[in-house]
Amino acid sequence: TLRVLFQYKPQNIDELMINAGDFIYVDPTQQSDVSEGWVIGTSHRTGCRGFLPENYTERAHESDTWVKHREYVFVTASRSFTQTENEPNEKLNGEVHSPSMSRSVANVLSLQNANLRRGVLVMRHGERVDQVFGKSWLQQCLTSDGKYYRADLNFPSTLPKRKDGVKHFEYDPPLSCCGIFQSRLIGEALLDQEVTVSYMYSSPALRCIQTAQHILQGLKLDQKVKIRVEPGLFEWTKWEASKAIPNFMTVTELAEAAYKIDTSYRGNFPLSSLMPSENYEEYVSRTPLLLFFAFSGVSGVILIVGHGSSLMSFTRPLLGLPARDSSDFAQAVRKIPSLGMCYCEELKEENKWHMVNPPVNTLTHGANAAFNWRNGIVEV
Amino acid sequence: TLRVLFQYKPQNIDELMINAGDFIYVDPTQQSDVSEGWVIGTSHRTGCRGFLPENYTERAHESDTWVKHREYVFVTASRSFTQTENEPNEKLNGEVHSPSMSRSVANVLSLQNANLRRGVLVMRHGERVDQVFGKSWLQQCLTSDGKYYRADLNFPSTLPKRKDGVKHFEYDPPLSCCGIFQSRLIGEALLDQEVTVSYMYSSPALRCIQTAQHILQGLKLDQKVKIRVEPGLFEWTKWEASKAIPNFMTVTELAEAAYKIDTSYRGNFPLSSLMPSENYEEYVSRTPLLLFFAFSGVSGVILIVGHGSSLMSFTRPLLGLPARDSSDFAQAVRKIPSLGMCYCEELKEENKWHMVNPPVNTLTHGANAAFNWRNGIVEV
Repeated sequence: TLRVLFQYKPQNIDELMINAGDFIYVDPTQQSDVSEGWVIGTSHRTGCRGFLPENYTERAHESDTWVKHREYVFVTASRSFTQTENEPNEKLNGEVHSPSMSRSVANVLSLQNANLRRGVLVMRHGERVDQVFGKSWLQQCLTSDGKYYRADLNFPSTLPKRKDGVKHFEYDPPLSCCGIFQSRLIGEALLDQEVTVSYMYSSPALRCIQTAQHILQGLKLDQKVKIRVEPGLFEWTKWEASKAIPNFMTVTELAEAAYKIDTSYRGNFPLSSLMPSENYEEYVSRTPLLLFFAFSGVSGVILIVGHGSSLMSFTRPLLGLPARDSSDFAQAVRKIPSLGMCYCEELKEENKWHMVNPPVNTLTHGANAAFNWRNGIVEV
Repeated sequence: TLRVLFQYKPQNIDELMINAGDFIYVDPTQQSDVSEGWVIGTSHRTGCRGFLPENYTERAHESDTWVKHREYVFVTASRSFTQTENEPNEKLNGEVHSPSMSRSVANVLSLQNANLRRGVLVMRHGERVDQVFGKSWLQQCLTSDGKYYRADLNFPSTLPKRKDGVKHFEYDPPLSCCGIFQSRLIGEALLDQEVTVSYMYSSPALRCIQTAQHILQGLKLDQKVKIRVEPGLFEWTKWEASKAIPNFMTVTELAEAAYKIDTSYRGNFPLSSLMPSENYEEYVSRTPLLLFFAFSGVSGVILIVGHGSSLMSFTRPLLGLPARDSSDFAQAVRKIPSLGMCYCEELKEENKWHMVNPPVNTLTHGANAAFNWRNGIVEV
């Protein structure tokens, strides 16, 4: 694979348009009739094939060529979600969707690799209410007689029912409406890329279960794949539960509140083993245990919704890397946004994994401030 | 009306729970059997009625009591959108919605006022793509052969078709996916409050038309109310069109792209009269002309989707206030967030208007950053 250094605009019909930064796949067996200084290649970006000047390119670094996995890993999976191209699909966002640009690329590249590989996609949950409204969010939303109301439109329209009282949401906050939007959008984007999710695991934190639920809805898999609530996926308790483990909603309560939960699943790391204020070693030792169970006999993509820390603590053992030291860990985790994700793919050699680009793009949006007409529109 | 200064917890069954900041409606004709130091009142917040200690309160400022309009203005309008209380409504955000908290309050207060008043709700559009991705947003989304692709998931999944070429979106950018989410949420919140929108006016800017469309979808009015595209509602051209007026999509193109446009509507301020780089006087003189036309023979709520500046330039003439000086204007407009809104209501005396709280709450959410697994998760 070559990486393009300079733009080249075709001078002839059989030449390839290339832009700086493009990756070009070059099949060595097809270079026999090519004149000196030229190669024939396929652009990863456009899926087009043609001649290009070799001195406009350099040999790509191995880690860069991982980019190509974005395209071909998923297309070989079941295509049961593929729409017919003549049938536009009305989306959450109300825009009519036309067939994905990348299909032609995917078609080209899928020829190169016909085996379905196993993958693990690890994500952080969406925006949580306390992230926007602070620790006192619940007080802002309760009337004096303890009823919930929506003090800002980014609060969810209702809270799920729980038997032990609404006050326990304080330590186990739900997604904001924006967090729901983010999760749904990621689910729809995974569907666009035809990602086949075989299993969905979630931290017992409500925000993670809600994220998982809305991703499955976006994927149109909410009637097929159920959420496995795994206590071992909860946040490092030193950060989130220094005094006591929150009272999570029970699996029964979640199911009654219309969350699609696999009620037959028993966590590999029982909730009762989760201790407040873990030290770093205790925290990182939770996940390898999980890995052993999660991947026996599974094919396709396993989706894990956890916390920022999960992106590191869950993937590194899988890649055979040691835990980072706790201050590097904290620094890296702090930068992980809502729905930040990373993706591990199994190599042909079984049980060897590497990290490649996730199947969908980033999600970047701005903040919105509250607005009061009393400030500046009229004099009062 | 009284404003509560201190919390008071009921000692008897006939007393009212009050919190600091509550407004309490006190009917002077009902105080005959009340002992010294006590009054009987109705809480605006809870709709409950009971005795309270007068010295825990002060007389509310007139402008503060405008708060009550939030509750009673709309409930007297047609209730055709009211759901039955036993029939939860599945919402965009996937949460099951229970009947609005404020209904009991509304019922109490609606007794005080049985006439339908006219209202004008002026809003800024939702998040636009260039607000997040900068002026070069379109370059980020075009392949070398000019095809649109979604470089980040907050870009819309497609752009509408236009005959004069995709490059014209550069000066007339669409909403981001987050902007679509914001607009939809506001529409749903207006529906919750049973706001009856009679007419929808929009600036010719694509982001405003899209905002209007998604609000109407949230209101479930997209089959009933059509969008009237009014060139006079466009941004102050000194800010947005200093060299040339953007090539807006035509009404025909918009209708073909499935926007619900009132194609029979002819703008009161023709597009051809819109001049680049207007001075402030030219800009503010555009709107009074509009007002004259917009309100003859209309009842119910008129919704206007424009720009930050519309909140000021459109409402002040209606309230009989002079334009603010241009630097105060700029300062106030800069603070107006996506879907920032203000609401004018007609007084009993016809053609006299005042500004009151809008029918729905604020929308506050955080930003989300792009994330690359190469930074910090594994060493590459």
